[in-house]
Amino acid sequence: MAAAGAKKLVPLLNRVLVEKVTAPAKSIGGVLLPESATKINEARVIAVGPGLRTKDGEVIPVSVKEGDSVLLPEYGGSQVKLGEKEYFLFRDDDLLGVLH
Amino acid sequence: MAAAGAKKLVPLLNRVLVEKVTAPAKSIGGVLLPESATKINEARVIAVGPGLRTKDGEVIPVSVKEGDSVLLPEYGGSQVKLGEKEYFLFRDDDLLGVLH
Amino acid sequence: MAAAGAKKLVPLLNRVLVEKVTAPAKSIGGVLLPESATKINEARVIAVGPGLRTKDGEVIPVSVKEGDSVLLPEYGGSQVKLGEKEYFLFRDDDLLGVLH
Amino acid sequence: MAAAGAKKLVPLLNRVLVEKVTAPAKSIGGVLLPESATKINEARVIAVGPGLRTKDGEVIPVSVKEGDSVLLPEYGGSQVKLGEKEYFLFRDDDLLGVLH
Amino acid sequence: MAAAGAKKLVPLLNRVLVEKVTAPAKSIGGVLLPESATKINEARVIAVGPGLRTKDGEVIPVSVKEGDSVLLPEYGGSQVKLGEKEYFLFRDDDLLGVLH
Amino acid sequence: MAAAGAKKLVPLLNRVLVEKVTAPAKSIGGVLLPESATKINEARVIAVGPGLRTKDGEVIPVSVKEGDSVLLPEYGGSQVKLGEKEYFLFRDDDLLGVLH
Amino acid sequence: MAAAGAKKLVPLLNRVLVEKVTAPAKSIGGVLLPESATKINEARVIAVGPGLRTKDGEVIPVSVKEGDSVLLPEYGGSQVKLGEKEYFLFRDDDLLGVLH
Repeated sequence: MAAAGAKKLVPLLNRVLVEKVTAPAKSIGGVLLPESATKINEARVIAVGPGLRTKDGEVIPVSVKEGDSVLLPEYGGSQVKLGEKEYFLFRDDDLLGVLH
Repeated sequence: MAAAGAKKLVPLLNRVLVEKVTAPAKSIGGVLLPESATKINEARVIAVGPGLRTKDGEVIPVSVKEGDSVLLPEYGGSQVKLGEKEYFLFRDDDLLGVLH
Repeated sequence: MAAAGAKKLVPLLNRVLVEKVTAPAKSIGGVLLPESATKINEARVIAVGPGLRTKDGEVIPVSVKEGDSVLLPEYGGSQVKLGEKEYFLFRDDDLLGVLH
Repeated sequence: MAAAGAKKLVPLLNRVLVEKVTAPAKSIGGVLLPESATKINEARVIAVGPGLRTKDGEVIPVSVKEGDSVLLPEYGGSQVKLGEKEYFLFRDDDLLGVLH
Repeated sequence: MAAAGAKKLVPLLNRVLVEKVTAPAKSIGGVLLPESATKINEARVIAVGPGLRTKDGEVIPVSVKEGDSVLLPEYGGSQVKLGEKEYFLFRDDDLLGVLH
Repeated sequence: MAAAGAKKLVPLLNRVLVEKVTAPAKSIGGVLLPESATKINEARVIAVGPGLRTKDGEVIPVSVKEGDSVLLPEYGGSQVKLGEKEYFLFRDDDLLGVLH
Repeated sequence: MAAAGAKKLVPLLNRVLVEKVTAPAKSIGGVLLPESATKINEARVIAVGPGLRTKDGEVIPVSVKEGDSVLLPEYGGSQVKLGEKEYFLFRDDDLLGVLH
């Protein structure tokens, strides 16, 4: 977990900074469902890097933009604390899709 | 298993969202065949990503399109729940062929 | 083993659909030879994919065509059932040669 | 740990020389927090290499510059002692982002 | 060991079909030398494939031709039976050199 | 350890021949410090190879030159004895930086 | 160990055929030094291959020529017997340098 003071992070290369969406706790018949049952791999894009460079030095822009709602893979991503808030850094090509 | 609220998913890069075809239960002489015997690796394409970029940054379109009936490999693919429905995400080059 | 209803399969990318040639049972002095002794890795090409794309996006056609008789490698290939018939899918560059 | 007399180091290729930011010791209710709780992966860029060459021989400049404040990955980097001071060398593409 | 009926095999891609040269049995003082002492890794080229394609789709011809006498590496190659005759398939870049 | 008679070695490809700088023995309060405490990974460049070729055959010159003082990585390099003198061969991209 | 009758070998691709220089036995005070103490990794280039092809099919010539005296790496190379003489085959990029 990489941590830094309460600053703004501009990701490098094709990294994407996201904030996970936490699902409202669900209960069935008053019984609170375990977190795994309500686990949502949705996240909001906070900031994106410039993108990777091709072998000829041209930059390939990242395929998502700030504000997009994305579907995260089951695993991966590195946790980043900025001040008290918790974010995750993913590589652009690990993100599964954009939710509309 | 990546899960999200009941939304529409647009896959990224060369990913393909499919919905598996479930084979009608079969029985021989009234005896219900085990699921493996009737297991069909057929699926319908729900949505496709834009495709991968070549080293020079050009996009190679995905080789299947929405509505195609495809043959899935034995293994692979990641499960995705959108609302109550279950889908699978495959990479374009893992799909075996198109069924006509 | 990927299975699908009795349909026609068009392989994707550089995959080649083949049907194995089964060798006539051989016997020496009336003793039936074990299957391995008469095992022939010959197969007939049923259908071919369009081919792989180079990194610049151009398609490299597959090097065999429908109807060719090919020599299969000892291992590899994935089994595919279409209806009641059994086929195998190989990648073009795994096929050893064309038999004339 | 690579060590050298008290000299100036110009990194080679896409290496970046950084000096880690040490977080002020924190205490809660007078109890000194363990170092891991206040561990900040922030660092200041001291010097950068010219960058990597593409396969065609062109140089891809490094994506950070002297004086930038960067977020370091959890692991990696090689320790370098120049005289009595301690620095770290990272590859440009291992740095997570620039802090503003 | 890939086997096929008594047919002619045209190798695919950069594969080379060779027939091993068997060294005359040697004896010293009438004592027959073990096969390993007289083992010759020499072979005659029977047929060659068209060659591999570069990433731009151009074909790189194989570096040996039918009739060449070549030096084989210690290991590698796949055995191929065509009718009753035994051959070996090597990739062009595994062959060590041409003997004159 | 590659050894050769007392000759001059011109490295091949992107190899760099260096001679390690040995740190003066240090003592604190008259107690000789162990070699690891005074271990300096500094070296002087004796000779450089022409450089590596890109995939298009162009040569990428090595990034250091004869006489440069360089910082060596903790590990790696192959020992070379030329006559009675001991040198080390590193690949250009393993050298950490140039000391000024 | 690849062996062939007493013929001339032209290496393929970027292979280099060398003959090892055997160091004169050394003794100190009349005591014969063990072979490892006098082991010289020097060799003479006997024959060179045309070179490797780049991805675009162009040939990159080998960086040493017949008659050069080269420094061999500690390990590697495949032994080749041509008639009664023993040689070694190295890949061009495994040779450390040229001795003058």
